[in-house]
Amino acid sequence: MVNKLNPRLQEPLEEQPLDTQGFERPRNLLNAINEDLAPLLDLAQRPVVSANQFTREQLLQLARLAARYETQPQMITRPLTGKILVSAFYEPSTRTRLSFESAWHRLGGDIMSITDPASTGIAKGETLYDVGEMLNHYGDLVVLRDSNEQAVYEMLESLRVPIINGGNGTDEHPTQALADIYALLKWRPAICQPELDPTQHIRIGIIGVPGRMRTVRSLLVLLGLFSDAIAEVVIVSDKEQPFAAGQREELEAAGLTLRITRDLNQSLPDMDVVYINTIAWIGDDYEELGSHYRLEQSSPLKPDAIILHPLARGDELPRELDNTPHNWYFAQARGAVFMRMALLSSIMKTFT
Amino acid sequence: MVNKLNPRLQEPLEEQPLDTQGFERPRNLLNAINEDLAPLLDLAQRPVVSANQFTREQLLQLARLAARYETQPQMITRPLTGKILVSAFYEPSTRTRLSFESAWHRLGGDIMSITDPASTGIAKGETLYDVGEMLNHYGDLVVLRDSNEQAVYEMLESLRVPIINGGNGTDEHPTQALADIYALLKWRPAICQPELDPTQHIRIGIIGVPGRMRTVRSLLVLLGLFSDAIAEVVIVSDKEQPFAAGQREELEAAGLTLRITRDLNQSLPDMDVVYINTIAWIGDDYEELGSHYRLEQSSPLKPDAIILHPLARGDELPRELDNTPHNWYFAQARGAVFMRMALLSSIMKTFT
Amino acid sequence: MVNKLNPRLQEPLEEQPLDTQGFERPRNLLNAINEDLAPLLDLAQRPVVSANQFTREQLLQLARLAARYETQPQMITRPLTGKILVSAFYEPSTRTRLSFESAWHRLGGDIMSITDPASTGIAKGETLYDVGEMLNHYGDLVVLRDSNEQAVYEMLESLRVPIINGGNGTDEHPTQALADIYALLKWRPAICQPELDPTQHIRIGIIGVPGRMRTVRSLLVLLGLFSDAIAEVVIVSDKEQPFAAGQREELEAAGLTLRITRDLNQSLPDMDVVYINTIAWIGDDYEELGSHYRLEQSSPLKPDAIILHPLARGDELPRELDNTPHNWYFAQARGAVFMRMALLSSIMKTFT
Repeated sequence: MVNKLNPRLQEPLEEQPLDTQGFERPRNLLNAINEDLAPLLDLAQRPVVSANQFTREQLLQLARLAARYETQPQMITRPLTGKILVSAFYEPSTRTRLSFESAWHRLGGDIMSITDPASTGIAKGETLYDVGEMLNHYGDLVVLRDSNEQAVYEMLESLRVPIINGGNGTDEHPTQALADIYALLKWRPAICQPELDPTQHIRIGIIGVPGRMRTVRSLLVLLGLFSDAIAEVVIVSDKEQPFAAGQREELEAAGLTLRITRDLNQSLPDMDVVYINTIAWIGDDYEELGSHYRLEQSSPLKPDAIILHPLARGDELPRELDNTPHNWYFAQARGAVFMRMALLSSIMKTFT
Repeated sequence: MVNKLNPRLQEPLEEQPLDTQGFERPRNLLNAINEDLAPLLDLAQRPVVSANQFTREQLLQLARLAARYETQPQMITRPLTGKILVSAFYEPSTRTRLSFESAWHRLGGDIMSITDPASTGIAKGETLYDVGEMLNHYGDLVVLRDSNEQAVYEMLESLRVPIINGGNGTDEHPTQALADIYALLKWRPAICQPELDPTQHIRIGIIGVPGRMRTVRSLLVLLGLFSDAIAEVVIVSDKEQPFAAGQREELEAAGLTLRITRDLNQSLPDMDVVYINTIAWIGDDYEELGSHYRLEQSSPLKPDAIILHPLARGDELPRELDNTPHNWYFAQARGAVFMRMALLSSIMKTFT
Repeated sequence: MVNKLNPRLQEPLEEQPLDTQGFERPRNLLNAINEDLAPLLDLAQRPVVSANQFTREQLLQLARLAARYETQPQMITRPLTGKILVSAFYEPSTRTRLSFESAWHRLGGDIMSITDPASTGIAKGETLYDVGEMLNHYGDLVVLRDSNEQAVYEMLESLRVPIINGGNGTDEHPTQALADIYALLKWRPAICQPELDPTQHIRIGIIGVPGRMRTVRSLLVLLGLFSDAIAEVVIVSDKEQPFAAGQREELEAAGLTLRITRDLNQSLPDMDVVYINTIAWIGDDYEELGSHYRLEQSSPLKPDAIILHPLARGDELPRELDNTPHNWYFAQARGAVFMRMALLSSIMKTFT
């Protein structure tokens, strides 16, 4: 039988914000960016499929809006009342689905979920083109996750309401990258400044495979928009060719300085930000890549380095790091809701 | 990697109404029918299981109300606020489920969905009689789809809140038939007139098997209410006996002139309306019937003939027809939401 | 083909309250308890995992609040507007899930459901600790059902929003027990009195296995709070040891007089209340225990004895009893929604 004397049952739960969760910092970010709604107006009624669609100004204003939601929750009204989200997850997901649904609900909207492909007309061989045509009439915005990277493009052909790519196979996961950037800007608002002093430039380590992980792919594209604040991005991987064809060239053209290493611990002492992920989705299954890389409390991290992780995590990120100041992955997960609220508000033109 | 330069990502999506989608026509329908709420009041708190339950006047007033919702969306308030729909789909569905849920949400109501029989008490051998008794207390209206045609009747035994049949095996799908009729009336409001000039009578071709397809079965019953405007209904089928026992006699008693043919292309030049469907649900699976019948751009259709299809479609209705004026199946799908709103409003007595 | 002349299709459904369903009685209960909000304030922001957490005063005030919701539904506002329930059912359920979701919706809140573990990050090996950390940011309250009895405790470690145990393996199902007590108090409000005349003390028969059935386990704990009104609790079981280790001693320490018998029909003539259940959940499956026990119309029940059952039922409770005055199991199911509303209101501090 279970311990009935669990101390957590004895008294009300209090919100116990850790310093590591960034509860205070959005305010600094809010102050660091001047409000300018024009870049967000350009997002109105737009589909969001690729990280390549965003400008630096859009990222800053999205982050600013997210910070406003996070610091001033009492200012959130219910502008999406009467609007319907179609939350279509043809590939398993909790985190991304719930994060989108939470964001939509907090803005007052209603939701129709599809969580099981076997329960849908897709099972009858219906094309995504036809599903898209149908959704034009049944919903106001679609979020789609599908293990087939072409799926979102097929649906886009017939859709006249906006669609957001919630992860398309190994290709992209642009809103995860938005959440990553939001965490980064909350941690170091100075990154927003156009001409950052070189001594303040940051080094980012990415433990993962840019050519095969959609989260890493999308993140690198967005980091390209802040290349003037980034001294170097170090890819930690044991793959011969961690990049996809042409990917490295594109990122370098965007201004990023890239380096590849196999040695995690040798690189860590220089890193201000360490992003780690070991899961790559392949079809309906996933593969662990570089799973021998592992961060731990004894890892040679800079004292003020932060760790980011898109979660869910495996052995590569043990719980012993949760209560250290390196833990910004919980803040990153928390911020994902506010960032998605900012994006949804902008697409639905309800942010004012 | 995916084409990042997809033109649909470059600019906001505009609603691009095709003339074929009937966006303008509901207004003519609205004008063609005099408002009379009495027939709708008779629907209050009524279960809707069979197309046989409707009168011609109810269809006209439901279509009128649907047209009002379609033409004046800004007039839709949220009268179902606080009301709960139980959306119980024990058989796979996207289109019907989302169409009902969208309709209910647009009227302001909340929804509890059951999309997977394995996740329910049914798995424990609970009877639908007991499920119905439970739902009396948990919801305000039930939509049920079940591959067992008796299921809706079993639940009806214990229910004291209204139930709508969302498809019961091979038996009926009355709300799909309502959507079909709505498309028909939008296309040719004159059908509403009590004494239509015989030169205006229409010929309807139905490619399908009335005895085994629930959509066709329900539609034919409703067409019987407009027999004075229909010159002939031609069943295109290669079955020896496309009708169920007694079905043809019932329809003829309702005033329909019926003819059966095997030859699609010989019949097409006379048809004003062509309804096509090849799927029949049998238990948990479906069967394709008459799948060698196929409409295409080169089919000998009358220039102003319209095509209807309950969707999802297969090879029988290729995409090459989508951009022709024959395409009324998208208008039909669009209208399904407004027609279901009209029905739900009437049952819940919130249409005024 | 189906009978189209079903009489239930011919006319509007009327709410047809049976006398057995206790529609009238909540008013007597309301009058029997003096309002005192202090015990409910102690529930604010509290997790609810075990029946052991409740005091007698809390039960009375929860029952009073439930009775207020049941008798005065027009007084229910939508205090949970903008609040999000995470309804996480990792084990099959209809009744408990829909009852919670209905309660939350009636109070105006939004819901995100997880009904299929295979569709979630759990499939990727994510720990419940991490899921809990995530839910802190995505929802305002969690209801969890899991076949692993430790699951709720694991999630509790990281949660800073309240969680309610919706059934954890063979351990507990505290809110089902709340619903049971509510039915009991509606039936006999005198049980609320501190010093009940011994002639009014009730005898309760429980057909089930306290050591292995979570519903029975939780119920017995709550009955312990009313031991001064209970003459005896008789466990009807064919098991050698129907109690878990220490369970009987705990219940006797709470003041209950317990007796075990194998003979149902010999015991029935003395019972005022007969609670019956045959299902025990073991892992992802269930086991039928004591399924040869069966109540029927010919059972030697006292004329005014009531039957309770947590449902879903099997052969042990045939439908022939539904239309007898012994049927309080439907009232019990109906009341479950109001009792859960009372609990949710109290935890969310929105009951005033």
